[in-house]
Amino acid sequence: MAKESSSKLVPGTPLLKDELDIVIPTIRNLDFLEMWRPFFQPYHLIIVQDGDPSRTIKVPEGFDYELYNRNDINRILGPKAACISFKDSACRCFGYMVSKKKYIYTIDDDCFVAKDPSGKEINALEQHIKNLLTPSTPHFFNTLYDPYRDGADFVRGYPFSLREGAPTAVSHGLWLNIPDYDAPTQLVKPLERNKRYVDAVLTIPKGTLFPMCGMNLAFDRELIGPAMYFGLMGDGQPIGRYDDMWAGWCTKVICDHLRLGVKTGLPYIWHSKASNPFVNLKKEYNGIFWQEEVIPFFQSAVLSKDCTTVQKCYIELSKQVREKLGKIDPYFNKLADAMVTWIEAWDELNPPKEAAGVPNGTVKGK
Amino acid sequence: MAKESSSKLVPGTPLLKDELDIVIPTIRNLDFLEMWRPFFQPYHLIIVQDGDPSRTIKVPEGFDYELYNRNDINRILGPKAACISFKDSACRCFGYMVSKKKYIYTIDDDCFVAKDPSGKEINALEQHIKNLLTPSTPHFFNTLYDPYRDGADFVRGYPFSLREGAPTAVSHGLWLNIPDYDAPTQLVKPLERNKRYVDAVLTIPKGTLFPMCGMNLAFDRELIGPAMYFGLMGDGQPIGRYDDMWAGWCTKVICDHLRLGVKTGLPYIWHSKASNPFVNLKKEYNGIFWQEEVIPFFQSAVLSKDCTTVQKCYIELSKQVREKLGKIDPYFNKLADAMVTWIEAWDELNPPKEAAGVPNGTVKGK
Repeated sequence: MAKESSSKLVPGTPLLKDELDIVIPTIRNLDFLEMWRPFFQPYHLIIVQDGDPSRTIKVPEGFDYELYNRNDINRILGPKAACISFKDSACRCFGYMVSKKKYIYTIDDDCFVAKDPSGKEINALEQHIKNLLTPSTPHFFNTLYDPYRDGADFVRGYPFSLREGAPTAVSHGLWLNIPDYDAPTQLVKPLERNKRYVDAVLTIPKGTLFPMCGMNLAFDRELIGPAMYFGLMGDGQPIGRYDDMWAGWCTKVICDHLRLGVKTGLPYIWHSKASNPFVNLKKEYNGIFWQEEVIPFFQSAVLSKDCTTVQKCYIELSKQVREKLGKIDPYFNKLADAMVTWIEAWDELNPPKEAAGVPNGTVKGK
Repeated sequence: MAKESSSKLVPGTPLLKDELDIVIPTIRNLDFLEMWRPFFQPYHLIIVQDGDPSRTIKVPEGFDYELYNRNDINRILGPKAACISFKDSACRCFGYMVSKKKYIYTIDDDCFVAKDPSGKEINALEQHIKNLLTPSTPHFFNTLYDPYRDGADFVRGYPFSLREGAPTAVSHGLWLNIPDYDAPTQLVKPLERNKRYVDAVLTIPKGTLFPMCGMNLAFDRELIGPAMYFGLMGDGQPIGRYDDMWAGWCTKVICDHLRLGVKTGLPYIWHSKASNPFVNLKKEYNGIFWQEEVIPFFQSAVLSKDCTTVQKCYIELSKQVREKLGKIDPYFNKLADAMVTWIEAWDELNPPKEAAGVPNGTVKGK
């Protein structure tokens, strides 16, 4: 009796121990790693400290980690370090750049292990890996959600030619308890908690933007890494709390162009505490205005056919940012420059494999 | 303390007793209405009998209903009756046409009351009404699903200008137990059952098509009724089981054009038995080929700015069907004709309210 269809690609889930880094922006909270120990200890951690470099972060014994503070970032990137935010968790993207692994999982230090409705602790990383290793379905919507999950499939009316799906570049996980609200909503609904466990993973369709939250996020560095730039936030910048949003909009436009998939839904983490809504409002207010123009910009952004790599897409997008968003505020010109610097820094730390040889008949370095 | 935000539009759910008809294609099964009695009895039923008009359908006492068989359809529509399928549940769309209510709920007679994870019987109609009375969010994706549900809202990064949402035209419900699979999937996975209760309602984003199933479907007749044509299926036609799909593709393209929303997810019904996969394969095989061209056609269909009503959109779509799909098979020319006939019949039974007066300075009938 046919139990598994050919569409099931992950019967058991591999750990990907040697292929995944966990990137964490500053750990203020010692409980955090202790709580995640059973799930995170097999992996290598990259901790990027966002504030004062003289402060030390105490990592409990038994974890394999590397830690970068501002001095390290400046030393490694030189003048290009200007593209990495300071005093803001947006600095985490430096970790994506220095990683040498295929997959990244990033999580905030106020996110703890959640429980599913049966009371079982959720292994968030395992679900992200499942999401990343199975295809996405960006080109047609499946009403029973992820067709590659056990017990599900493509429904009647789903074109057979699209059932192979697209490679998955991003897995966006959700949050129980404190929802990821903006400051105005936090202020209006201080008591709201997310108690609804929605047992679904779904692909965000092609052409649709979404608010990507960096709290509980995994991605395939090889497929989309250079687009995961968290922008210029925090110290010296007129905006905060839009780092992950910016990365999400750029990433989605590029995934759509390159026919890659973005999933959202499971896994949940337990978001333990709401950040201060007054502080958040101060960080967000420019973004709240600007997003009204920035989102239509991304909704109508088209990349040319020459954009065959993430880097090329990203550089092209940076030009469009300068041209179309520069008039909103000079900040966007600075951001467009930083986008270019980011790609230069990325390529410096991650030289293309062909560069080792002699590409296109030219002699390297001459 | 602010408990409800302004986005909550349905604190209690109205019954809409005088504003909703339930349309059922042939009832072969007396248990069906008995099981739904507590939920359906307040409503008017329209039963459209798909086969032999001499067979009688016994409706249990206490239900308010009207029943149409083929003779009735021929009598009411005259030659235009040709657009209504015979010996196929696609005939149900005749019920949409003769209804005088604002809302329609349609359900198959092998769909029973499902239970939620707590064991409580699900009032499917109540959830559909909630879905229809709250806005949709087709222009940006909300990662916590329906932001108008209790305990949810728009997440950080969701543009404030889009938080009013769009009017909801369609509510597409799902099925526990027997999933709505095509014949090939039924044959490959005869034992698969849908056991996953996904506690979510979400808007299908603008520009994204989906496979709309007619088993458990509600819509706003005033907003989208004339697009809910279930095509030419069954007796004398080269295709079956694509009636709801056809309606769904047309409806979604028109909803996108008119900035209306389509939701999917809750409520679940219990789909009691799988139809015969061998019979289904015979009905579907042309559709399985054709959908590979038909879906790209709908994905790229653009309606002109003059199309300001559903009828105008539908007539324009019928022209595009003839022009672009006619070459696949002569069936699509016949279908394009039937689409026009359907609109003519719809307008005959549902004369535009202005037609009672003297529109545009012309004298009516002269």
